[in-house]
Amino acid sequence: MKVLALTGGVGGAKLCLGMAHCLDPTEVQFVVNTGDDFDHLGFHISPDIDTLTYTLADRSNTELGWGRRDESWQFIESFEELGGKTWFRLGDRDLALHVRRRELLSDGQTLTEATAHVAKAWGVDFPILPMSDDPIRTIVHTPDGPLKFQHYFVRDRCEPSVTGFAFDGIEAATLNPKIDFDGLDAIVICPSNPFVSVDPVLDVPRMRERMKASGAPIIAISPIVHGQAIKGPTAKMMRELSIPATTASVAAHYQDLVDTFVIDELDADAANDVQALGMKAHVTQTVMKSLDDRIDLAKFVLGLLA
Amino acid sequence: MKVLALTGGVGGAKLCLGMAHCLDPTEVQFVVNTGDDFDHLGFHISPDIDTLTYTLADRSNTELGWGRRDESWQFIESFEELGGKTWFRLGDRDLALHVRRRELLSDGQTLTEATAHVAKAWGVDFPILPMSDDPIRTIVHTPDGPLKFQHYFVRDRCEPSVTGFAFDGIEAATLNPKIDFDGLDAIVICPSNPFVSVDPVLDVPRMRERMKASGAPIIAISPIVHGQAIKGPTAKMMRELSIPATTASVAAHYQDLVDTFVIDELDADAANDVQALGMKAHVTQTVMKSLDDRIDLAKFVLGLLA
Repeated sequence: MKVLALTGGVGGAKLCLGMAHCLDPTEVQFVVNTGDDFDHLGFHISPDIDTLTYTLADRSNTELGWGRRDESWQFIESFEELGGKTWFRLGDRDLALHVRRRELLSDGQTLTEATAHVAKAWGVDFPILPMSDDPIRTIVHTPDGPLKFQHYFVRDRCEPSVTGFAFDGIEAATLNPKIDFDGLDAIVICPSNPFVSVDPVLDVPRMRERMKASGAPIIAISPIVHGQAIKGPTAKMMRELSIPATTASVAAHYQDLVDTFVIDELDADAANDVQALGMKAHVTQTVMKSLDDRIDLAKFVLGLLA
Repeated sequence: MKVLALTGGVGGAKLCLGMAHCLDPTEVQFVVNTGDDFDHLGFHISPDIDTLTYTLADRSNTELGWGRRDESWQFIESFEELGGKTWFRLGDRDLALHVRRRELLSDGQTLTEATAHVAKAWGVDFPILPMSDDPIRTIVHTPDGPLKFQHYFVRDRCEPSVTGFAFDGIEAATLNPKIDFDGLDAIVICPSNPFVSVDPVLDVPRMRERMKASGAPIIAISPIVHGQAIKGPTAKMMRELSIPATTASVAAHYQDLVDTFVIDELDADAANDVQALGMKAHVTQTVMKSLDDRIDLAKFVLGLLA
């Protein structure tokens, strides 16, 4: 079995964890969105890579839903005392990752190499591949002007209404050469935000062609369930973009790329709409609350290949 | 009253705290050694400036004898997990100072300005002046070759025997222009290591001339008491340099610069040797265990001016 999984942050990482329980490190590559990356306080912060790494390393903070487990906040409390900006909450343990990554990057390592170094230190053997080692920065357009993604997402808590997106630097970026498209059995698009988590990955020059040229079936799992996003602003964004916040709209977003679309039981009645777009539609329980849910969804998706 | 106090780290900072209890912020300037400064993990670390700032801000870690009070170590523990070097123990709260300083320096502030910013945030109004805003790096010469100061002092725990010292960059460095020599009533050389804390300050181009030209009495307090250094490697260094580890040797080190030398009661019999060097000798209790000890020594030193 050889699978390529495209993922953003929390939602996608849940399915990646499920796949990691079903496949060997040689059987799956995780290609991660870096459009959320940003430079903050002199650190290179890669929120989606970090979320996936923490998740696979069993170090994610499940109470908060972001960041690292067993976290403490002495740094940020003292940093605020010194007049530092605290809208992006850097935990004491999380800081270790950012300081170490900067050290590795300034030693000349690529983001891919630095990511592998951190994963290895935590015993994670699965390949975690940034979509590109070149800087790509997601910009969220709003009626009040463009916002850097983390300003929109964290600082402004997704409150501004969105009118569109741009991925600065993407035209000049090189697709991560470590991604191995040869002999893929499947490409899985995890249930991540289509606009700001998956589109940046798909829009890296040559990514779509390489995916199609691989000949592997492309399977997407809907991040929208019964008109809601499990987490994050996907549904809100769709409403603001005047797109019905439905699973069928997500399927339409992936038309001409995705062969098979997985929808939740609650959206079973959307199967016809999905098929009308020329995709196979499969229905299952997609909401991942427990580890078993993650593994069950991974098994279901991989089972579609049999 | 207008006093200029030259200081290194812990020992000098004790007397500075005592002076801060006796004088207004307009009456004293603290000129601090930056030869210990180093770049570590992408941070500019100024150990002596930080020790004095923590001391004056009542944030110093008196249990450890270095660093910040109420410190925690989540960062360094996690950093070690990632293969990071941990010989220089950065605490979670101490990190806030280093991240903030880097931010201020990269915004174009001088070390003097960044230091003032931090001090102000903690309610410290006393001028804490780096001896220079230019990089000066103390090198410790040993039989096995040169060592950067923090490698000698922290990483190697002062174990290598010393054969001499160099202050890289000092010839090209500019004396901190914020130091005000006009109308000084006294210049106080705090009980700090003469070789690696005070000499770097004295050796900044024009420092000695400006001190002498000010016409102010120069008073030094011996860091050696009864052949021992209260803290740090001063006595060990003297033995390795074949200099008797005595308070008189320290006086001789400052000959032709210092007018008045303050020695501890335990060294009262050295008064004659000090006077033989052409200095006034004064005897008092110089070991500062309590805050009262710090204030008493400051009062004694300032009293010499009456």
